[in-house]
Amino acid sequence: MAKTQSDLDRALNGDTRALARLLSAVEDESPRVREVIKDLLPRTGHARIIGLTGAPGVGKSTLTAALVGAFRAAGPRVAVLAVDPTSPFTGGALLGDRIRMQEHATDEAVFIRSMASRGHLGGLAAATPQAIRVLDAAGFELIIIETVGVGQAEVAIASLADSVVVLLAPGMGDAVQAAKAGILEVADLFIVNKADKPDAQQVVRDLRGMLALGTTEPGGWKPPIITTTATTGEGLPEVVTRLDAHWDWLAESGELKRRRHARAREEITALAFAALRNRVTRGGVDELAARVADGTLDPFQAAEDILDG
Amino acid sequence: MAKTQSDLDRALNGDTRALARLLSAVEDESPRVREVIKDLLPRTGHARIIGLTGAPGVGKSTLTAALVGAFRAAGPRVAVLAVDPTSPFTGGALLGDRIRMQEHATDEAVFIRSMASRGHLGGLAAATPQAIRVLDAAGFELIIIETVGVGQAEVAIASLADSVVVLLAPGMGDAVQAAKAGILEVADLFIVNKADKPDAQQVVRDLRGMLALGTTEPGGWKPPIITTTATTGEGLPEVVTRLDAHWDWLAESGELKRRRHARAREEITALAFAALRNRVTRGGVDELAARVADGTLDPFQAAEDILDG
Repeated sequence: MAKTQSDLDRALNGDTRALARLLSAVEDESPRVREVIKDLLPRTGHARIIGLTGAPGVGKSTLTAALVGAFRAAGPRVAVLAVDPTSPFTGGALLGDRIRMQEHATDEAVFIRSMASRGHLGGLAAATPQAIRVLDAAGFELIIIETVGVGQAEVAIASLADSVVVLLAPGMGDAVQAAKAGILEVADLFIVNKADKPDAQQVVRDLRGMLALGTTEPGGWKPPIITTTATTGEGLPEVVTRLDAHWDWLAESGELKRRRHARAREEITALAFAALRNRVTRGGVDELAARVADGTLDPFQAAEDILDG
Repeated sequence: MAKTQSDLDRALNGDTRALARLLSAVEDESPRVREVIKDLLPRTGHARIIGLTGAPGVGKSTLTAALVGAFRAAGPRVAVLAVDPTSPFTGGALLGDRIRMQEHATDEAVFIRSMASRGHLGGLAAATPQAIRVLDAAGFELIIIETVGVGQAEVAIASLADSVVVLLAPGMGDAVQAAKAGILEVADLFIVNKADKPDAQQVVRDLRGMLALGTTEPGGWKPPIITTTATTGEGLPEVVTRLDAHWDWLAESGELKRRRHARAREEITALAFAALRNRVTRGGVDELAARVADGTLDPFQAAEDILDG
């Protein structure tokens, strides 16, 4: 406890190694996390959170790096949380990608961190909101959550963001795949990367066709499609402009408040179910079951006893 | 309450109309059910429960009727609970089948009741154990739960029994289908009905082949395969003999106690999760979510508040 507590103080004062230790504690679902989160809670709520997802090979890390550069030019401290739901290793699977982030390695206002599932996806989904809180409290004004893939797990994690960016590229992770994953509904912005490739415009047309099937309410947000070449930085300023516009829209429309409320609701519901699963597996249930089986305890009372822990 | 209470007294004294009303209350998940179950609990635990499942058309109802007749010959009062997870109507879908039960309509020691999902399968799975308790307390020494189909829902309901009988017939609901539904693992006895049809022996061979892939522990139960012609009663005495042998084995091996304990455990766990789902949807969560979103309540505390109702 004392250690984590002092790590908290240090992390809030800009010590990135203390911050990294804190994030490890969060990722390990350490029992101390709860106290840490409680302590840093009053300092949260200021960060703007951008989620970025796309299939492997669409150029996600290169684009994230370019995006970090573009946002840094405007001033804010930026944290990148790279989440790989399919990898059991923290850091490992993304290490190659992280190397492309080297240009920001000496920038103290940029913090980069990989998180992986360790074979326990539920834990990752639960840990990510806490990691966001830690980075938020540590003063990062912009947090980019990058997830690999366009499956349901990735959609769930991307949905923890205020703005969700879906990255596509010609030849990989096409629009139909994205549609299947249900990502069209949650995307606030589409980026078609590798715009220098011949089929890029076809991806844009496919996407436009699918988006045309949906409807936008009056005053709603119509997700723009932006073409980029992340390796050259082409299109990046446009991405930043549109993300800023989305951020303004979120605030003005009341959608930011609505989204954060819905996220909090989902988070606490998931935590409640996880806590119940814990109580069920932790034992004690067998004793109740024995009494129900021999007719000395009614099953409804037994269920309440489990709920009450 | 008073009404249900007096229905309970009447049902325990053999009033079948009061019993039917009590089962309706159980099926409707009436809030009074809880008190009723609590009151009748000391009178439960005596009935022997047989589950019978099979695809539509295998002759389930005819066989159940024949089985009721065979068991009645030995003396016990028999209740049949016909559960149709796919039908939204109580009684309706099975009415045609019930007509085949007419031979027992005048036998006061036989009680027949249909239950259907009303489009809410979770409710049916939750209501069945309570219906069993009601029939058990009302003095039925043998309760046959008949479910239509061999899907997962049917397997789950059949698993509420002490002995699980899977019914197959040539040309319909073959062994491969049963294997896919995971029924091979839960079956204590296989009946291949319509033994007078030419392909019956092929069904037996297929089934034997698949069962040979599994292993039986020393002292374990090896599910027998019995051929019947339900319409003539052929094979029925054999079914009763084997079910009696299984009942003896259940008691001697300690498996009966183990099964009933596992069932109670599953039931109370499911009830606890259902109660939590109720608390989540009942409201109050939005207020907690608002406080988490604005940083005045930590999510772990909010989750505990939900659990504590």
